[in-house]
Amino acid sequence: MATMPYPDITSPVFLLDERKCRHNITRMTERARAHGCAFRPHFKTHQSRRVGTWLREAGTEAITVSSVPMAEYFAADGWKDITIAFPHNPRETARVNRLAGACRLGLLVESSAVVRQLDDELRHEVEVSIKIDAGYGRTGVRWDDRTAIDAILDAIDTAPRLRFRGTITHGGDTYHAAGPEEIRSRFETARTRLMERAEHIRQRHPDCIVSAGDTPGCALAEDFTGIDEIRPGNFVFFDVMQAELGVCNPEDIAVAAACPVVALHPGRREAVVHGGSVHLSKDALAGENGTPVYGRVVLLTENGWSAPLPDTAVVSLSQEHGIIRSTDEIIALLHEGALVGILPVHSCLTAQCMRGYLTLDGSAADHLAGTAHSLHLKGDHP
Amino acid sequence: MATMPYPDITSPVFLLDERKCRHNITRMTERARAHGCAFRPHFKTHQSRRVGTWLREAGTEAITVSSVPMAEYFAADGWKDITIAFPHNPRETARVNRLAGACRLGLLVESSAVVRQLDDELRHEVEVSIKIDAGYGRTGVRWDDRTAIDAILDAIDTAPRLRFRGTITHGGDTYHAAGPEEIRSRFETARTRLMERAEHIRQRHPDCIVSAGDTPGCALAEDFTGIDEIRPGNFVFFDVMQAELGVCNPEDIAVAAACPVVALHPGRREAVVHGGSVHLSKDALAGENGTPVYGRVVLLTENGWSAPLPDTAVVSLSQEHGIIRSTDEIIALLHEGALVGILPVHSCLTAQCMRGYLTLDGSAADHLAGTAHSLHLKGDHP
Repeated sequence: MATMPYPDITSPVFLLDERKCRHNITRMTERARAHGCAFRPHFKTHQSRRVGTWLREAGTEAITVSSVPMAEYFAADGWKDITIAFPHNPRETARVNRLAGACRLGLLVESSAVVRQLDDELRHEVEVSIKIDAGYGRTGVRWDDRTAIDAILDAIDTAPRLRFRGTITHGGDTYHAAGPEEIRSRFETARTRLMERAEHIRQRHPDCIVSAGDTPGCALAEDFTGIDEIRPGNFVFFDVMQAELGVCNPEDIAVAAACPVVALHPGRREAVVHGGSVHLSKDALAGENGTPVYGRVVLLTENGWSAPLPDTAVVSLSQEHGIIRSTDEIIALLHEGALVGILPVHSCLTAQCMRGYLTLDGSAADHLAGTAHSLHLKGDHP
Repeated sequence: MATMPYPDITSPVFLLDERKCRHNITRMTERARAHGCAFRPHFKTHQSRRVGTWLREAGTEAITVSSVPMAEYFAADGWKDITIAFPHNPRETARVNRLAGACRLGLLVESSAVVRQLDDELRHEVEVSIKIDAGYGRTGVRWDDRTAIDAILDAIDTAPRLRFRGTITHGGDTYHAAGPEEIRSRFETARTRLMERAEHIRQRHPDCIVSAGDTPGCALAEDFTGIDEIRPGNFVFFDVMQAELGVCNPEDIAVAAACPVVALHPGRREAVVHGGSVHLSKDALAGENGTPVYGRVVLLTENGWSAPLPDTAVVSLSQEHGIIRSTDEIIALLHEGALVGILPVHSCLTAQCMRGYLTLDGSAADHLAGTAHSLHLKGDHP
């Protein structure tokens, strides 16, 4: 059998190119600085203390997470200023209270009932932001619903343990844009709406902070006037979805799943790899003729990986199997036991599935999902 | 706030109804017995030692898994007869060899090159089955490719450490059938092809075992003539996909993700739950008007959960958010902090995401993915 690159790899492993990742971090940090925005990167993409240290070395002090366990994971690693960018779940107040005793904690609210419940049950002070829906339509109070926003502000202002911080928005509709121009225009629409709402809120809270953040908008927009803070997350790794949106170049993608080839079907120009939905996740893009694309394929090299192979994609996934469809020439290069790289469609989910990383120097990097699972029930004290 | 059922649950938890699961196990065990087939259930769906003990109590002695780590997990729990139903990956031979020293191990091959590599590197004896593609088109040697099958048999017959066991097939095309009739006819087509091939192989290996197995076929077929062993896996839990295919009733589904409601949008008849793609997986069915369905919604009760709520589904998932769309009446019943149950579209993937179970008596059950992640590189000795 031919020489195999990465001879130590035996089963699917998520490769992380530290140089590309640090480059992505530097670029977004500089963008935030150039536009006068505070930078509170979202850690839900990497969920790694090791990648966190690279952000810390680039100057990051305040972070965003999407769940209470994620906040605990990074608080235990010394992060002192954490926003949980997910509507507060009243069942988690006791757990949140313990966290608020250990770091500066920011929460999101979008209902007065939750504000009152928080104030009743918390013992430590927290900062709260109002989750605003600036047009994406997932969750949050609609930007134009002044009545609802005023009611929440009234509840916050009479809650001694809650300090109002500002508004927070995730403009996820940029992911559904056709390309860079539409991303910029959607970001601009949201920005205008957020400025208008902040103007109203500043009549009673002059220090209201406007926080926005999605990787496409933060990577491409030119006007951040009125936005005080950005919270992109995916930019640390990028992925095929971002590259196809025009948000990054394929060579900026900092992660690739190394997957062993286990079967060849040259007659249908396909190879089967160990690398299925439990490794890559089922997130897909629409490829040519409506065939789904679950990943783009690269060749592994001494120092990383090649550009994506032309006319080649992961077109089908079972639990453990991935099917690569390619050309006669490329399939002929493969053999059982060869290793190929798969650039993920959605790096956040692939990282969650893979539960850890191997950097190109051969060392492991952690992921929260790689820690042992434990059931947290009410009354447990982690 | 209204009384909450399951007051101890604070964040997404995968509920497992032991009574339903044991009932599903009993029914499939009896089906195998009634049709004269050996039963080698696939453990990839539950990946749980605790659920494994329920199968053991129902008489299971031989099991199927889909990866080497899964084989190791169950071998360490005392299972002595394990088939890894995935084409052997030549990079894993050393790890497989250690396992073969600890239990009776079955492997799948579909190429002579892999057979030769196995025989070169193994020190312990293993049983090998030829992976046959009986029409599904994922992987395996096509049932009608006698030349390829003969070449593999030649390689096996000259490999002292490999003992030929038989043919093995996964008829995954039953999952793409329109309903029970088509499932039965696809299973029947595969059965006929497998019998024909076995007749040919038995000229040199009279004891060739024919192993087939997919939950839809095994649950619905009436004629198993010529099939010596069945390997269904999903039947332990079933899921919405199986119910919509007509393979089970919704009340047979033995798992539900308990998810807290975190936001309400009555104007659009939606509720947001903590329960996203990292909990449920992105597997979807096509609902009405092409809207994807990522799960059906149930109300949690004292002893389990209700029937699926009418006109209600999880219609969108982000990393942590799930969006439930329903009726005015049902949305009006919910509040922030309420708990709803979500029946998974594909229970194998949801179990993998959730990484553990809570049984209705309040005790935890394990899942392989809930153990701490470790990178296994060549030369590691787990």
